[in-house]
Amino acid sequence: MTNETDLLTRGRGVVAKLWGTRAAGQELPAQRLAPEFFGLVTQFVFGMFWSRPNLDVRSRSLCTVAQLAALGRTDELKAHLAGALNLGITREELIEVLMQTACYAGVPAAVNALNAAADVLR
Amino acid sequence: MTNETDLLTRGRGVVAKLWGTRAAGQELPAQRLAPEFFGLVTQFVFGMFWSRPNLDVRSRSLCTVAQLAALGRTDELKAHLAGALNLGITREELIEVLMQTACYAGVPAAVNALNAAADVLR
Amino acid sequence: MTNETDLLTRGRGVVAKLWGTRAAGQELPAQRLAPEFFGLVTQFVFGMFWSRPNLDVRSRSLCTVAQLAALGRTDELKAHLAGALNLGITREELIEVLMQTACYAGVPAAVNALNAAADVLR
Amino acid sequence: MTNETDLLTRGRGVVAKLWGTRAAGQELPAQRLAPEFFGLVTQFVFGMFWSRPNLDVRSRSLCTVAQLAALGRTDELKAHLAGALNLGITREELIEVLMQTACYAGVPAAVNALNAAADVLR
Amino acid sequence: MTNETDLLTRGRGVVAKLWGTRAAGQELPAQRLAPEFFGLVTQFVFGMFWSRPNLDVRSRSLCTVAQLAALGRTDELKAHLAGALNLGITREELIEVLMQTACYAGVPAAVNALNAAADVLR
Amino acid sequence: MTNETDLLTRGRGVVAKLWGTRAAGQELPAQRLAPEFFGLVTQFVFGMFWSRPNLDVRSRSLCTVAQLAALGRTDELKAHLAGALNLGITREELIEVLMQTACYAGVPAAVNALNAAADVLR
Repeated sequence: MTNETDLLTRGRGVVAKLWGTRAAGQELPAQRLAPEFFGLVTQFVFGMFWSRPNLDVRSRSLCTVAQLAALGRTDELKAHLAGALNLGITREELIEVLMQTACYAGVPAAVNALNAAADVLR
Repeated sequence: MTNETDLLTRGRGVVAKLWGTRAAGQELPAQRLAPEFFGLVTQFVFGMFWSRPNLDVRSRSLCTVAQLAALGRTDELKAHLAGALNLGITREELIEVLMQTACYAGVPAAVNALNAAADVLR
Repeated sequence: MTNETDLLTRGRGVVAKLWGTRAAGQELPAQRLAPEFFGLVTQFVFGMFWSRPNLDVRSRSLCTVAQLAALGRTDELKAHLAGALNLGITREELIEVLMQTACYAGVPAAVNALNAAADVLR
Repeated sequence: MTNETDLLTRGRGVVAKLWGTRAAGQELPAQRLAPEFFGLVTQFVFGMFWSRPNLDVRSRSLCTVAQLAALGRTDELKAHLAGALNLGITREELIEVLMQTACYAGVPAAVNALNAAADVLR
Repeated sequence: MTNETDLLTRGRGVVAKLWGTRAAGQELPAQRLAPEFFGLVTQFVFGMFWSRPNLDVRSRSLCTVAQLAALGRTDELKAHLAGALNLGITREELIEVLMQTACYAGVPAAVNALNAAADVLR
Repeated sequence: MTNETDLLTRGRGVVAKLWGTRAAGQELPAQRLAPEFFGLVTQFVFGMFWSRPNLDVRSRSLCTVAQLAALGRTDELKAHLAGALNLGITREELIEVLMQTACYAGVPAAVNALNAAADVLR
């Protein structure tokens, strides 16, 4: 039987693969306002979903980058682009994912994502 | 110098990998209303973007499925899930992509995508 | 000093230009559930905004069709396409507006809008 | 130390308040495709978030109805309207929440939500 | 028979409950560009909808906060969080509303809302 | 038979009508990251869609402004408001388009668009 501590441990394992042992987004205003929120996110996003079998972490990372670009979530996009580079996904592959966003979410979504990415991928 | 016929040829090559030689969505009302639109889409979506180097078609397919799920575009999602299966992506991998959508676009987006997928992936 | 009855009268004048004297969407389930909502909509959408000077009704109609297509609001899109035809905007112009939606909201938004439009514009 | 079974138990307690002991949405195609997804949802949506202190279940229900209406998630909206009625929120209060959606997400979002609600609230 | 001045008076009454007699957002660039827009908003948002019976102002405020968080409208979210505090809703309740947004609009929407809220709720 | 160079030439013709011979958004970070993306956009957005017959450029410009306002794409909105002024659309007409956005995408979308527009339309 897995307990919440296990969810947290499992989630932290994924987080460490993406961003090293330093927790991501450490200085967000949201973290001072609602510190327990980020523990819950580690448990359910990374401990429940990302750590499931049947899909490799590389594919999970590409799909996350694609979704964040389509949804215009630029802060998380930057964090996950950095994570994708840490997993060995190349800068060129990531630029292609962002460019292709133009087809499904429109050109402004792709430009917005590429602008955000320039900080991380230069 | 590449001409528009080349864009169309290149685009049709990608379309054939995804859905065979039968054009996808052949009976949409939109195709009777604006038949030239779908020629343009083949040229720019598949001829300009999907046929670019630097990212394999398998990754493009996963990212497209992920984006369509996040954006709630269920008709295109069904078509691209079928295309993904044709590329050799497994049913189990696709279900994981759709489940993980809950983290980035919310639970209702994931449920909606999984409901649409049930037709294609059962 | 204009009173609410005036807002309603002014709004109904615009509604009549778009859809004749028969109120639009007369049989929606929403109208049985919240009949007063539609009186408020006539007052503020058509009485406050559409009846303002500085922009002709034809341009307001085109912009509304464009926004409803981009936002994926197919029921209202159908109603406003019918209204646009009543104002003398052509079928061909409306198809162009919907096709161009692919650039700003993505191809699936345009296909979705063209599918909805096929009922009204055939 | 709380374990996952506890999350599930806590989540099911909230689910029972909203919809009785019969699990909601029992016959969705998504549930045949990805049955484990709904266990995860019970754990994190209802076990992690809804069962937290500091906000009463009635307010959580109203806020959920408001968000689902704004986001156009009509299937979940219907389920949560039924849940809200079970909590003692009145039909009249719920109609007001949906009408007010017009201000923040636009009139088509409100009409869409009211149409979906007519099935549940008549 | 109620006239537009009455709508404005009624609307201003709600505005005063939320933000005192100082009009909210007094220095927005939009207000210099389109000053009459804000008079219309006071009339229809606050005079037509918020001042209706059947739902208390506290519940309207919570639902508005929830919708603005889900839709990513951070400027209005900040204004309505301040308004909610003025109505007596607690900081802790508001943080719960924003955290729960993760379930229905995704984790990035919740983080974004909590980041915006940190300015107002610290 | 039209070739890609023709698409580019045709696209640049539309771009010049909107923004003169200086390419729009010349200094975006995205342009340093993915310079070829903007060539593709000129080809398909302006060469394939905007240069089609059946709808005049003025109407295309108004519809684009309307969609960008509804979708919250403020960077592109500013660029297209400047383009619209160059085509002879008046400041007053553009303000009306943005105000009316409140009806279909909600008041916060309209305020957001008017705030962005204040830079360009003052």
